Amino acid sequence: MSEQALRYLSENRTSLLEKLNEFLSIPSVSTDSVHKKDIQEAANFLKDYLNDIGFDHAEQHDTGGHPLVYAEYNQAGSDAPTVLFYGHYDVQPVDPIDQWKSDPFKPEVRDGRIYARGSSDDKGQVFMHLAVFEAYMKTEGKLPLNVKICIEGEEEIGSEHLYDVLQDKKDQFNADFAVISDSGMVAQNQPTILYGLKGFTGIEINVTGPDHDLHSGMYGGAVRNPIMKLNHILASMKNEDEVITVDGFYDGVEPLSDKERELIENVQGENYEKATGVKETASEKGYTAKEHTMGRPTFEINGMYGGYQGEGTKTIIPSTATAKITCRLVPGQEPEQIQKILEQHVHKTAPSGVTVDVKKEKLSAKAYKVEPNHPLIKKAAKSYTKAFGKDTVYVRMGGSIPVVEWIEDIYNIPIVLLGFGTPDDRLHSPNESFPLDSFDKGMETLVRYWAEVNA
Amino acid sequence: MSEQALRYLSENRTSLLEKLNEFLSIPSVSTDSVHKKDIQEAANFLKDYLNDIGFDHAEQHDTGGHPLVYAEYNQAGSDAPTVLFYGHYDVQPVDPIDQWKSDPFKPEVRDGRIYARGSSDDKGQVFMHLAVFEAYMKTEGKLPLNVKICIEGEEEIGSEHLYDVLQDKKDQFNADFAVISDSGMVAQNQPTILYGLKGFTGIEINVTGPDHDLHSGMYGGAVRNPIMKLNHILASMKNEDEVITVDGFYDGVEPLSDKERELIENVQGENYEKATGVKETASEKGYTAKEHTMGRPTFEINGMYGGYQGEGTKTIIPSTATAKITCRLVPGQEPEQIQKILEQHVHKTAPSGVTVDVKKEKLSAKAYKVEPNHPLIKKAAKSYTKAFGKDTVYVRMGGSIPVVEWIEDIYNIPIVLLGFGTPDDRLHSPNESFPLDSFDKGMETLVRYWAEVNA
Repeated sequence: MSEQALRYLSENRTSLLEKLNEFLSIPSVSTDSVHKKDIQEAANFLKDYLNDIGFDHAEQHDTGGHPLVYAEYNQAGSDAPTVLFYGHYDVQPVDPIDQWKSDPFKPEVRDGRIYARGSSDDKGQVFMHLAVFEAYMKTEGKLPLNVKICIEGEEEIGSEHLYDVLQDKKDQFNADFAVISDSGMVAQNQPTILYGLKGFTGIEINVTGPDHDLHSGMYGGAVRNPIMKLNHILASMKNEDEVITVDGFYDGVEPLSDKERELIENVQGENYEKATGVKETASEKGYTAKEHTMGRPTFEINGMYGGYQGEGTKTIIPSTATAKITCRLVPGQEPEQIQKILEQHVHKTAPSGVTVDVKKEKLSAKAYKVEPNHPLIKKAAKSYTKAFGKDTVYVRMGGSIPVVEWIEDIYNIPIVLLGFGTPDDRLHSPNESFPLDSFDKGMETLVRYWAEVNA
Repeated sequence: MSEQALRYLSENRTSLLEKLNEFLSIPSVSTDSVHKKDIQEAANFLKDYLNDIGFDHAEQHDTGGHPLVYAEYNQAGSDAPTVLFYGHYDVQPVDPIDQWKSDPFKPEVRDGRIYARGSSDDKGQVFMHLAVFEAYMKTEGKLPLNVKICIEGEEEIGSEHLYDVLQDKKDQFNADFAVISDSGMVAQNQPTILYGLKGFTGIEINVTGPDHDLHSGMYGGAVRNPIMKLNHILASMKNEDEVITVDGFYDGVEPLSDKERELIENVQGENYEKATGVKETASEKGYTAKEHTMGRPTFEINGMYGGYQGEGTKTIIPSTATAKITCRLVPGQEPEQIQKILEQHVHKTAPSGVTVDVKKEKLSAKAYKVEPNHPLIKKAAKSYTKAFGKDTVYVRMGGSIPVVEWIEDIYNIPIVLLGFGTPDDRLHSPNESFPLDSFDKGMETLVRYWAEVNA
């Protein structure tokens, strides 16, 4: 039966891509308040599309922040399973804008890839699901299973309100299992089941010295330089071996078993040098880059700033310096505990003569691992393999999807991560893109999966 | 005879302050190319004013960068000494603009201080000289000595073209001695002769890791973080004792003699905590804050930036990180040598997996010391003391004035530093200001000094 839906997708490919372009053209950047109207426009687009497809109760939930789009389809019958689909319509900021080859919000196809912010993370993948549901409705007049759609607009800013909504709406949103497409494959055209995700937490450090920028000639030698002090603090948190030197950071970390190391080794991972442009990879002493990225915790400074950044020189001692830090966590690490020891370390190493303030990120998530042998996972692998014509691999990945932990926590249902992104998509970076080939094969995977699930 | 000039200054105080406001209202920021027109306007203001006063050959020299304003007065006769007056009409940038209580280019008087960018450094002090010459011309019809005026527009960006101009125009600019008012007094109302200045040099460090910002989940653990690597490099250059840990940095440094330490100790210095807002001063181990600021070399990070600085979080590994560094030098240190060992240290400590680039600042100056017993210095001290009603102190200061070294180098004439700034002027910072009281007493000092010089 899924063949008709597949034919519909190929026959209507052009118009579907046009509709995708319309969606990608909306600059729904959630972290920047100037885009509030665009966020609303993206939410409206989804609500209208879901109505057109034939979903019931398509509506927008006022979360207190950006709206969450919800819709459901219950006509597959009470015997049919119900899936909760989660995705997000908000995107990362586009800076540095001058590094984009084409306008991030004017989608452009080059070399078989569609270039636009959100093309891969996550508007593109969300759209694939809706297009597949449209294909089923237009050809069969129904869907193979009951579906509940939950698409939020705050994923890129920590899904601040999602947990509460998932809790408040538990009766309405509840389902037999959940499907999320907000992840990737280890290589283009390599079907991949994510059975492990990293947790996440972060802090911001602010160091304040003088109450205003000082002339370095008049006061150099009399006061601490906040930037230098922040350098001392940060340099004490990770060493040249890429080992995190914060007391207790690795406590309770579930070690990588030889079997798991072998699994990781066998994954045809991407070429990190090629994908990142570095001459040489660097990883935690004792682990390969692949092992560190997929299975070991990380500590990254995402941004740091203080003092003069303009043209030429400005001979000042700046008043403040700031660093934004996030960590990716593995099973065995508690986000709140990690934040606590990071904060303790900062205050322990903070020198006299400056004021050091630590702000804890609201976003926090434990790491996640799923049972690779669950039938719903097996069926996903089968659909993947059929669509891509290649065996599916099972991997752990370095990314964090807090909603995965929350759905598990609140609904306690199996979660299937059907990701179609590729390592070259440049998520969160200039020139984000998504391969049209993955667009086609990904939709075929979904068509087959929904049929399999209720087979 | 100087009494008439003094009377003129007090009788015309209001109109002179209005003219000063007109000068300060021109946003002559030299480091930012968007202010090119304003720089030209400030130069025109000076040329016109010098013409009105009665100087000859008032003209603008095309330096290849911002224009240099020159004028001369030769009618004091061949027996009268000739002074070369140097000042600058360009100013520092105003950022962070939101910290200004009033518009930096709309001068405002509050609590006896005139608030405006350049009010102290250096437009205000330049204007005092011109007003005094005006006073002499309007009352005596002549000046007590021959005067050559040299006012540049590139001091805040390293006086890139000044050295060449001073060399090219040597025959025209040459004089018996030079006077510069681009410095300050150790405390308001405390006449101060600067007998020592620090030298100056700087570098910019750029660290590049991946060729684009990376998703910290997909690549965290596979590549070096450029910000963290820059932290490691910088933290290795100065320690917790505020001692610079770059091999050879202190080589050849002329030690502070007990006599000099006593001199510094006896100077009623400012209250650093009050002036800077720090709870506790910090200085090189073994030296007081005053000793370190006035007589020991310094190393300051003026600015550092990399990665995300916006609202919220952005989970990236940034592509690049940058630090701007300047050092203040003391007698015995060679700027070029210091740049060389800083660069060597950076490359020596640079880890694999990132590209580290060091850019040497063009601006460079050796430290300067003058003989406190020179008659021209003694006369300056006498005029100061008369005008301010207080004994003049002799100090070394942490600031750097490259032109001092260059005039000494090219013209080999005595240089008198007549500074009227005060420690609370907030040079290079938001809310720069200058006391009206210093404006009056400073001009009186100049009136008396010109009379003394040719007495």
